[in-house]
Amino acid sequence: MKFWSNKAKSISPYTYGEQPKDKKYIKLNTNENPYPPSPKAIKIIKNLDENIYKLYSDPTCNELKEAISKVYNVEKKQIFIGNGSDEVIAFSYQSFFNKGDKIVYPDITYSFYPVYSKLYEIEEIINPLNDDFTMNLKGFNKKSKGIIITNPNAPTGIALTLDQIESIIKDNLDKLIIVDEAYVDFGAESAVKLINKYENLLVIQTFSKSRSFASLRIGFAIGNKELIQALHIIKDSYNPYTVDTIGIKAGAAAMLDVEYFNKTRNTIIATRDRIKKELDKLGFKSTNSKSNFLFIKHNSFKGEYIFKKLKENGILVRYFNKPKINNYLRVSIGTDEEMDEMIRILKEKILK
Amino acid sequence: MKFWSNKAKSISPYTYGEQPKDKKYIKLNTNENPYPPSPKAIKIIKNLDENIYKLYSDPTCNELKEAISKVYNVEKKQIFIGNGSDEVIAFSYQSFFNKGDKIVYPDITYSFYPVYSKLYEIEEIINPLNDDFTMNLKGFNKKSKGIIITNPNAPTGIALTLDQIESIIKDNLDKLIIVDEAYVDFGAESAVKLINKYENLLVIQTFSKSRSFASLRIGFAIGNKELIQALHIIKDSYNPYTVDTIGIKAGAAAMLDVEYFNKTRNTIIATRDRIKKELDKLGFKSTNSKSNFLFIKHNSFKGEYIFKKLKENGILVRYFNKPKINNYLRVSIGTDEEMDEMIRILKEKILK
Repeated sequence: MKFWSNKAKSISPYTYGEQPKDKKYIKLNTNENPYPPSPKAIKIIKNLDENIYKLYSDPTCNELKEAISKVYNVEKKQIFIGNGSDEVIAFSYQSFFNKGDKIVYPDITYSFYPVYSKLYEIEEIINPLNDDFTMNLKGFNKKSKGIIITNPNAPTGIALTLDQIESIIKDNLDKLIIVDEAYVDFGAESAVKLINKYENLLVIQTFSKSRSFASLRIGFAIGNKELIQALHIIKDSYNPYTVDTIGIKAGAAAMLDVEYFNKTRNTIIATRDRIKKELDKLGFKSTNSKSNFLFIKHNSFKGEYIFKKLKENGILVRYFNKPKINNYLRVSIGTDEEMDEMIRILKEKILK
Repeated sequence: MKFWSNKAKSISPYTYGEQPKDKKYIKLNTNENPYPPSPKAIKIIKNLDENIYKLYSDPTCNELKEAISKVYNVEKKQIFIGNGSDEVIAFSYQSFFNKGDKIVYPDITYSFYPVYSKLYEIEEIINPLNDDFTMNLKGFNKKSKGIIITNPNAPTGIALTLDQIESIIKDNLDKLIIVDEAYVDFGAESAVKLINKYENLLVIQTFSKSRSFASLRIGFAIGNKELIQALHIIKDSYNPYTVDTIGIKAGAAAMLDVEYFNKTRNTIIATRDRIKKELDKLGFKSTNSKSNFLFIKHNSFKGEYIFKKLKENGILVRYFNKPKINNYLRVSIGTDEEMDEMIRILKEKILK
């Protein structure tokens, strides 16, 4: 480690969900969409002119901004696009926080936020969730530069209403409020409609979940144009071309295919609600998830035990060995067939 | 700018080559390859299974590492892959330099380095080029944490020999030496063969030039496994999936198609050498470029004037309004037809 920076020596990277290659699993561990992306987007990829590949991608991502602008009814200059919502969050840390500034988030939330706080030397202030995993709204009102909220929250799946989000914004007009809506399309209400009302609101979304494009790395932020401008300055000082040409073009097609988007997300919601009931019958307690995963705990078997037994039986779910949630499992919603197979394995091989 | 960080307020982003949309240009301004990528790589893209898109890309980029490992005869753990060489350089700054550390590079070099120095608060030490744009090798021997050298240099195109690179490394064994080889495949010698000899050497390359994949954002570093490990720690603390699935798979195919790679780069080299002679006849002086561009200056017409006239005539080249080089033009090597058209326009419409 002779040449390593202090950061390389001291930081603990984000732990991503395992991607084992030893055998074929039913993969319910990284909240991917079980359905392929819009056929219109796939057609775009198959038919791309070979002469486009040699050229740099458009650093302004104009074509994709136009599509998002249309679907979300916002201006192009209110949109920023990055390499997945992770990158958009990382740029937000650099665009709006100085070293030593404070940022508030819950104890149970997307586990990348503490990594960014360490990487960019931002001080985290923890606003613990209530015992039932709901958020303590007034707990965000602490002296800080900003607040980041995942809505619906991960890995609990519990959503705030738009009124609740607005009350946090109103209480903290002097701070930047980042609402990370990675899972919003599965039953929660987006805060995008508040961006013209509050200059301190930045909403971040991704193509990795509801638009089935985790492979292509597209995330975006919507907010007032001054916030968006700062994100562009940081991106253009880091790597102006983080989103590639296929991402821009296929992403635009996927965004515009609202019909397919609604069909697949509604299927996932229906599967989630059905499987939740099935799990209830098997002795699981689950949160009121508005996302594409369930957060479940069994009334007699330990979470880690079920996790291991499911894996042995070819089903991957996510287990977090962390205080307060170390008896829970996060189960991504797959196809009906995949979920039925999980229920069968639980019934026949594990819970007995 | 109420919510902007100090960095967003103070940094001047990298200025990328213009991508005008007003009309169709012969684009010789961003050092892109005039030929499409390997047909084998394009076939991979066209035939990808639609079910791959919904899944996250492999954060280890294993398939691409295997291809690079084979072609460069290095171990997989000696390879790091990022979203273009820009990202790999940005990660290197974070992995090997602490705030306030010093880094040495020439005054005339890739203009992104000063932006990174500002972004990561690393102090730059300038080792000015000699008057003929060659490098002052001993000038790198200054008290610092590291050195970054573009070889061949940009925008001059002049290359150091492997012996010269090795002499810099030997003089500075206590420092990290980054050799940015974005253009190495057009006539210079790679320092990759030195990585097992020197633990302080990191070589960075890209798919954007010699492999015609600027669109797909793939860059890589080769060095001893401890350096590579630090890069992974920083990447996984920022965005573990910066390279997408198509980049990984098509990149691997392009890397393995050595025959196509040699054919296209040799064509570009031949075009470059031929056009250099044509430009000589027209009164241009040019450096001894070993890259996919020429760096030229006319003996009576001003660089800015020629730049503007070429643009009026549908040909984009790169002009840098900077001390020492503000009379030069950087001209990327296009197809023979494109270059002949430029020569014709110069002859018939500009230099008279």
